[in-house]
Amino acid sequence: MTSSSVTAIHSRDNAFVKDLRRLAQDTTAYRKQGRVWLEGDHLCRAALARGLRASVAVFSESFWPQAQVEYARAATKFIVLADALFADVSGLESPAAMGFILDLPAPASLRPDAATVVLDRVQDAGNVGSILRSASAFGFRQVAAIKGSAALWSPKVLRAGMGAHFALDLIEGLALDDLAALQVPLLVTSSHAGDFLHRAALPWPCAWVMGHEGQGVSPALEDRASLRIRIAQPGGEESLNVAAAAAICLHASGAGR
Amino acid sequence: MTSSSVTAIHSRDNAFVKDLRRLAQDTTAYRKQGRVWLEGDHLCRAALARGLRASVAVFSESFWPQAQVEYARAATKFIVLADALFADVSGLESPAAMGFILDLPAPASLRPDAATVVLDRVQDAGNVGSILRSASAFGFRQVAAIKGSAALWSPKVLRAGMGAHFALDLIEGLALDDLAALQVPLLVTSSHAGDFLHRAALPWPCAWVMGHEGQGVSPALEDRASLRIRIAQPGGEESLNVAAAAAICLHASGAGR
Repeated sequence: MTSSSVTAIHSRDNAFVKDLRRLAQDTTAYRKQGRVWLEGDHLCRAALARGLRASVAVFSESFWPQAQVEYARAATKFIVLADALFADVSGLESPAAMGFILDLPAPASLRPDAATVVLDRVQDAGNVGSILRSASAFGFRQVAAIKGSAALWSPKVLRAGMGAHFALDLIEGLALDDLAALQVPLLVTSSHAGDFLHRAALPWPCAWVMGHEGQGVSPALEDRASLRIRIAQPGGEESLNVAAAAAICLHASGAGR
Repeated sequence: MTSSSVTAIHSRDNAFVKDLRRLAQDTTAYRKQGRVWLEGDHLCRAALARGLRASVAVFSESFWPQAQVEYARAATKFIVLADALFADVSGLESPAAMGFILDLPAPASLRPDAATVVLDRVQDAGNVGSILRSASAFGFRQVAAIKGSAALWSPKVLRAGMGAHFALDLIEGLALDDLAALQVPLLVTSSHAGDFLHRAALPWPCAWVMGHEGQGVSPALEDRASLRIRIAQPGGEESLNVAAAAAICLHASGAGR
């Protein structure tokens, strides 16, 4: 038997609540606190399914009667917040009724031979989360984020990632030169050069580079690419959303292997 | 020679400003006002490139000296707002320095034989905008949104669409039965049935159905599909982001035709 504790909190000024509010609402608070905030049952269940356990499980008061049955084994420390307080901490337009605080996984180091997605200053949290989902779905093992990319463990990226974080090794804050450690071929998309993706023979494993929403992949990184690949756009639109382009490229690499 | 007017506005309570604030910040205000708000030079230039013209062009005071040269032909009616007022009207975290008010295009009717993307209650504005970009890039002609999908001409969807709106016929507020008018085969993705996309022979033109972020395609619509297609996910993730799935499917249909 393990013992567990349940604490009810009603005050906005409680120290735990203040820290949690920061964790839930500040994009990079997880770096200072060394822990992350997973809000909503989908994300929490995804963490449990990967064998992770919450360091603290947090529930709204009205969900607690049901939660203490459903989530009895999810943590040893439970916090119950008044509903309005939970909503205040969450900061979401539609706050969930639960969340987990999880210790931030120890930083992985870049594996030279792993199928990789490189994020070259991708800014938008929704895009980054979507790319993580695609990476995980198509068999990539690690995501390497160049300094200037969205913070990978921010609450927004976690929500958009829908659990993909737990299936990948995530390395962030890299300099361009750190990528020299990668031994797999580097692939970039180009609007004007290279083979068309739907006809190209793609190496596996490989590292796909996805670039900044406005500026694309930085020239220094493009120069290091082994392969430039074009996505045929018969409609002639000037560019795709970066997460859409990533989905197409990662699928092409992953499917049919 | 055409005559043009320039009006400077400094008051938050000005009637034009109040209407514009609603147009810029309320998701569905365009339906009442019969006009849409394009914020930022990228979106405005995309409209101009398609031969559209602003009914009113709006600039921040500090951008006006440059704008009156660059955008002299974009409209006949120009409004200049104090910078703080422009920011207040915009509501964006990083407000642009300009925007166009455009008359809402007359509603198109469903073309039975056109390559189509059907949005079956896709909720997220960023997803819908990304899907519109992919649709346009891969040669689809019309997007048909079932009632319950995000409002297609909302400012958020317009921003995420990056100009794709102007290359497509957009029909919204459809009932499921309205789709009976489509003569092209209906395609849906399935997690468990059908051919794998990367091996499938896809008909062209066709109509791809993209479903609600949580619930997927409604069963009634799935029943009408001519073809079910699976996206191979060797990584075993449970699902892709809907805009990512759309990108993969639309690319597969469009590229190499």
